[in-house]
Amino acid sequence: MSESRNLQLVLSKRPRGVPTADDIQLRSGTIRPANDGEVVIKNQYLSLDPAQRDWMNDAVSYLPPIGIGEPIRSTTLGVVIESRHAGFCVGDRVLGLAANAWEEYSTTHGDALTRAEPVGDYPLHYHLSIFSGAMGLTPYFGMLELGQPQPGETVLISAAAGAVGSIAGQIARIHGCRVVGIAGSDAKCERLTGEMGFDAAINYKATDDLAAAIAATCPERVNIYFDNVGGAVLDAALLNLADHARVVFCGAISTYNATEPVPGPYNYWQILARSATVKGLLTTNYVDRFDAAIDDIRGWLDEGQLHFREDIVNGLENTVEAYSRLFSGRNEGKLLVRLDAAPDAE
Amino acid sequence: MSESRNLQLVLSKRPRGVPTADDIQLRSGTIRPANDGEVVIKNQYLSLDPAQRDWMNDAVSYLPPIGIGEPIRSTTLGVVIESRHAGFCVGDRVLGLAANAWEEYSTTHGDALTRAEPVGDYPLHYHLSIFSGAMGLTPYFGMLELGQPQPGETVLISAAAGAVGSIAGQIARIHGCRVVGIAGSDAKCERLTGEMGFDAAINYKATDDLAAAIAATCPERVNIYFDNVGGAVLDAALLNLADHARVVFCGAISTYNATEPVPGPYNYWQILARSATVKGLLTTNYVDRFDAAIDDIRGWLDEGQLHFREDIVNGLENTVEAYSRLFSGRNEGKLLVRLDAAPDAE
Repeated sequence: MSESRNLQLVLSKRPRGVPTADDIQLRSGTIRPANDGEVVIKNQYLSLDPAQRDWMNDAVSYLPPIGIGEPIRSTTLGVVIESRHAGFCVGDRVLGLAANAWEEYSTTHGDALTRAEPVGDYPLHYHLSIFSGAMGLTPYFGMLELGQPQPGETVLISAAAGAVGSIAGQIARIHGCRVVGIAGSDAKCERLTGEMGFDAAINYKATDDLAAAIAATCPERVNIYFDNVGGAVLDAALLNLADHARVVFCGAISTYNATEPVPGPYNYWQILARSATVKGLLTTNYVDRFDAAIDDIRGWLDEGQLHFREDIVNGLENTVEAYSRLFSGRNEGKLLVRLDAAPDAE
Repeated sequence: MSESRNLQLVLSKRPRGVPTADDIQLRSGTIRPANDGEVVIKNQYLSLDPAQRDWMNDAVSYLPPIGIGEPIRSTTLGVVIESRHAGFCVGDRVLGLAANAWEEYSTTHGDALTRAEPVGDYPLHYHLSIFSGAMGLTPYFGMLELGQPQPGETVLISAAAGAVGSIAGQIARIHGCRVVGIAGSDAKCERLTGEMGFDAAINYKATDDLAAAIAATCPERVNIYFDNVGGAVLDAALLNLADHARVVFCGAISTYNATEPVPGPYNYWQILARSATVKGLLTTNYVDRFDAAIDDIRGWLDEGQLHFREDIVNGLENTVEAYSRLFSGRNEGKLLVRLDAAPDAE
C-alpha cells in the first residue's frame, strides 16, 4: 500500500438525541495492516441505517455498543487492497454486513465478508440498498418469515415511506395482501399509493387520533403490523389487531434518540387479548438464505413489481448531516455515502 | 322450579385497585327463565380467576367489559334444573367457560356449556381447577403450544407458586427442562423446589436486583419465560432472554389493579435484540383439544408427577374477600367458592 492515511468517523461521545458533529467526529488515523485472516478494504460506499443509532448507546443489544473513540460500525461496499485471507484477492469487491465502518479503509477478518457478486445488470452498490440486509432482505424475511402473509389479509406498515417499510409493503402486495402505510406527509402518502402500489396510506401528522384513523382505514382490522417505529404508532396499531395477528418487530426509530428510559407499548395487553404474536426480527439469522432471497427480489425488480429510491451523498465529511435526516424523515430513499474511491458508473 | 330468588354478586361500580365490597355487591335478584336454547343452572362451585379483574375494567380486551349492575362473569360448575336446549337434561352437571356468573343460578345458552364428565375417580370440581381452562389447561397449552419446550432448556416462570405458574413449571419439568420459579416468599420458594420439583426458585421480595438474581440463577439464559405478572418482573426477565426465546404472555396480574395507564415493558427492545417471540395466550383457542389435554393431565396426576392445591371458600358472601387474596398472594392454591348446593362429597 502506497498510502497509510485513513480518514474515519469516530464516536467521540455517546449522543443524546440525534447524533451531531460533536458526537461523531472526523479523525485522521492510519490504515491498520492486516493480520492473518484479515483483509484491508478500500471502502467505496457506506450504508446509513437506523440500527447504527442503537449501537451508539451503551446498552444491551444484539451487538455490543460502539466504543468511544471507535469508528462507526457499518456495512460497506469496497475493494480489497491487501489480503491475508485465502478467500479473497486484491481487487475483489466485498461487502461486510455490520463488519466494517464509516472510514476510508477497513481492516476486517475475511470470515465476516462476502464477495459482492454482480446481480444481473444492476449496479453493484444495490448490495447496500435493495439487495442488502439493511434494506431489501430485512423486509423480505420480516414479511415472509415472520409475517406469514396470506392473500386477502390486511397489512399495516409504519415508516412505510422508508427504505424498509416501502419494500415490506410491496412484498405484501405481491403476496396478495391489502396494504396500508403510515407516513409523515401527504407527499409520502401519495408516493405510497401511487408509485409503490399501496392500497391506502395514513398521514399520522394530519390526525390527532391515529388509532381511529387506522380503524377507519382497516375495517377488518390488522393481520400483520410491520413495526419500524415503536412508541405511539405501535400503541395505535395494537388497538387494531385482528385475532392471531402478527407484529413484526423490525425497529423502533421513534425511541432511538430518547434521553430517558422509554416504556414499552401501553397497549401491550392487546397481544394477549388478540392471541397475537410479536416477533423480533434480526436479518442476520437468515444469512444462509440471502442468495435465494436476492434471486426473488431480482425477479420482482425485473418484472417491475418493486420500486425503490436511493439517496446517495458524496463524501465522508457529509455523512453525519445526512445521517440526521434519517430521524427527521427528510431522506428521499435508502441513504448511502459514496466515497471518492467509487467508480462513477456505480 | 319451586323458588325464584337468585342471590348474585353484581358489579356496582368499576373498581380502582383491588375490588372491594363497595365495587361488588350482593343483590337478591330473581332467576331468569330459560328462552329457547337456554338452560337454568344451579351453581355449585364458582371459579375465582385473575382474568375477571380485567373484565371489570371498561377497556378493550378479549371479552367485553362486565356491565355495571351485571353479575360477575365466571366459569362455574353446576347442575341443570331447567333445559330448553336439546343437548342437556335436568340433572346434568355442566361447566360454562366464562359463560356463567357469581350467582346462585345462571341462565345460559346451552352452546356455551359443556357436560362435566367424571375424570377417573377425581372429584368433579377438579374441572374448575386442575382440569379447567383457568388453571390446568392454560399452562398446558401455554407451555406446550406456545413455549415449545425442548429438553435441557431453561424455563423461567413468574407467580410460580400460583395456580397457573406451578402447573406450567411442572409441565416443563416433565418435558425435561430446567425450571426456575419466581415467587413472593421463602415459604413459597421452598414449596416450589420441594413439593413441586422446581430446580430453583427466586424470592423477588428478598432481592433489590431481580435481573441480576435471574442472571445468577439462569447462567445459560432463559429460553422460555412464562409470564403471569408483567411489570417489573417482566422487565427483569427480558434482560435475561436467550436468543430465539419464547415469552408466553399468559397474564399481567401486577397491572390489573392499576389506576393509571400502565406502560409496557421498558425492555421491550430485547424482543428484537434476542430474536425473541412474545405470544399472547388465550386458552379458549384450544377448546376442541381440551379433552386430549385433560387425558394428559390426568395421566401425570395418576403417576404422581403433578402437584397442586385448592383453596376452597364456602358461601357467596365470602367471595369478594377471597378474591382480594389473589392479588396479595395470600391464597393457598386455586381459589374456588362452594355454594350450599354442592354435595359434600365433591
